[in-house]
Amino acid sequence: MTEVVGVDIGGTGIAAALVTGDGRITARSSVPTPATEGAGAVLDAVAAAVGELGGSFAAAGVGSAGVIDRASGRVRSATDSLAGWAGTDLRGELAARLGVPVTVDNDVHAHALGELWTGAAAGKRHVLFVTVGTGIGGSLIIDGRPHHGAHAVAGHIGHLPIPAAAGKPCPCGGSGHAEGVGSGPALLAEYLERGGSATALPEVAALAESGDAVAADVLALGAAATGQLLGGLVNAVDPELVLVGGGVSSCGPVWWSALRAAVAAEVLPAVRDVPVVTGGLGSDAAVLGAARMAWDELG
Amino acid sequence: MTEVVGVDIGGTGIAAALVTGDGRITARSSVPTPATEGAGAVLDAVAAAVGELGGSFAAAGVGSAGVIDRASGRVRSATDSLAGWAGTDLRGELAARLGVPVTVDNDVHAHALGELWTGAAAGKRHVLFVTVGTGIGGSLIIDGRPHHGAHAVAGHIGHLPIPAAAGKPCPCGGSGHAEGVGSGPALLAEYLERGGSATALPEVAALAESGDAVAADVLALGAAATGQLLGGLVNAVDPELVLVGGGVSSCGPVWWSALRAAVAAEVLPAVRDVPVVTGGLGSDAAVLGAARMAWDELG
Repeated sequence: MTEVVGVDIGGTGIAAALVTGDGRITARSSVPTPATEGAGAVLDAVAAAVGELGGSFAAAGVGSAGVIDRASGRVRSATDSLAGWAGTDLRGELAARLGVPVTVDNDVHAHALGELWTGAAAGKRHVLFVTVGTGIGGSLIIDGRPHHGAHAVAGHIGHLPIPAAAGKPCPCGGSGHAEGVGSGPALLAEYLERGGSATALPEVAALAESGDAVAADVLALGAAATGQLLGGLVNAVDPELVLVGGGVSSCGPVWWSALRAAVAAEVLPAVRDVPVVTGGLGSDAAVLGAARMAWDELG
Repeated sequence: MTEVVGVDIGGTGIAAALVTGDGRITARSSVPTPATEGAGAVLDAVAAAVGELGGSFAAAGVGSAGVIDRASGRVRSATDSLAGWAGTDLRGELAARLGVPVTVDNDVHAHALGELWTGAAAGKRHVLFVTVGTGIGGSLIIDGRPHHGAHAVAGHIGHLPIPAAAGKPCPCGGSGHAEGVGSGPALLAEYLERGGSATALPEVAALAESGDAVAADVLALGAAATGQLLGGLVNAVDPELVLVGGGVSSCGPVWWSALRAAVAAEVLPAVRDVPVVTGGLGSDAAVLGAARMAWDELG
């Protein structure tokens, strides 16, 4: 049976999988990302991860961190989380290493495509996908496909202004953006600033569940800020579904109820019933979406 | 030569025009909107305006205030500016009155389509169109067509949150939305609240140009709020061009320079050079866009 490879390149890990034409994973592998060693090392690590799968495949799809130009196959820009990644000929270099046609896109678009294929957004045409983790990113699924925009930047929804972020710095260099108050690092920093003690966000989430009022308050305020953004975007892009992924979305019911209440407070009557749900594919979403890109390319 | 009719139905006036296949207007007419007299009176007024054109035509395109469902041809919802408009079978009623096939859409989408056809956005695929007037509305042009969304609501960008609007009421019933501080009525109200004296926004604009510091400050703050919204949306939807229309966009250089500065402060580096321009068709834009819809329907 013909299969394709789906690859998800992140700042800390690379995941690969063999995927059938109906979206089933038959083999998985993962390796750490040699993020400080330059683009060549990362590309070699991708090839190693794919090699570990031990099967044959007709094509590969790749979702990668950074701004990816589907048309040229290159990395347009990337943050410091992947040293030397900007400018990499991702498609060409991986086609040479893997020996099959390669399709590339941004990892957030790949994640959204996975959920659209066999996950929580299956069968939908218009979806607002948001990932809340180290940053806040997204993918506007319009007519069944991710909207890439004129410069491959579309989906950077974390860099919209919201009231709760007024005056607060954003990792992009601007200020007042949703990412500056709703991301995982922002939530953890806020908890520490209020006198809490934790080394990572899941601890804060566990504390909130067990009754730590400060932890619960920090999560609820961050979720409310993100929800206000999402509600405004529902008014602007009018999706059938809002799909929320990323590490922060695992923060439990305190976070989710504040998020949903904030969305509800923001939306116009005509879009009041748009569901706000979490993904159905967990950490497989991006490799599945990447594989879907490869299948689409094969036609 | 075959022509079509383009119609623009607003809360105060109805405009109609005969339009050639290459986007030239050969006749114009306009009548006041009998806005308080019910849907039948408005539909009859449209027929009267079209009758005044005095030519023959093969089809009609109509842009109307309200949330318009292109597929069913009906008005899904409308504000009080057109009494009894919600639920009207706009396409069916006008086809019966005009005796030709009718295509309908929201007036803001029609306005954007006009500029996309022969105006300032000619030849573009991805455009963020915004109209700043009685409210703040918009149209996301994606792959050369207005994005309508799942409930015909897409483009309601005035109902996104921005810091300057925190706690301020919005005409939609919510609060904290850009429309609550950037619209024409919001600017006029702010000027009056600061002790100024004017009966309409153009007076405030004239005062600002002639050195009234309060008027200039009010315009600049409103434009900055709108610009912050637009900059954030540029990050999210990544257009080739931001096109700004509506009455408030006629407020002169004080308003425009504050708008452009706010957009520039907000955008990510990759979209730094996206131009922010005004329309090229003036008040003809919506009738031209409506005519374009009719031409597209004729195939």
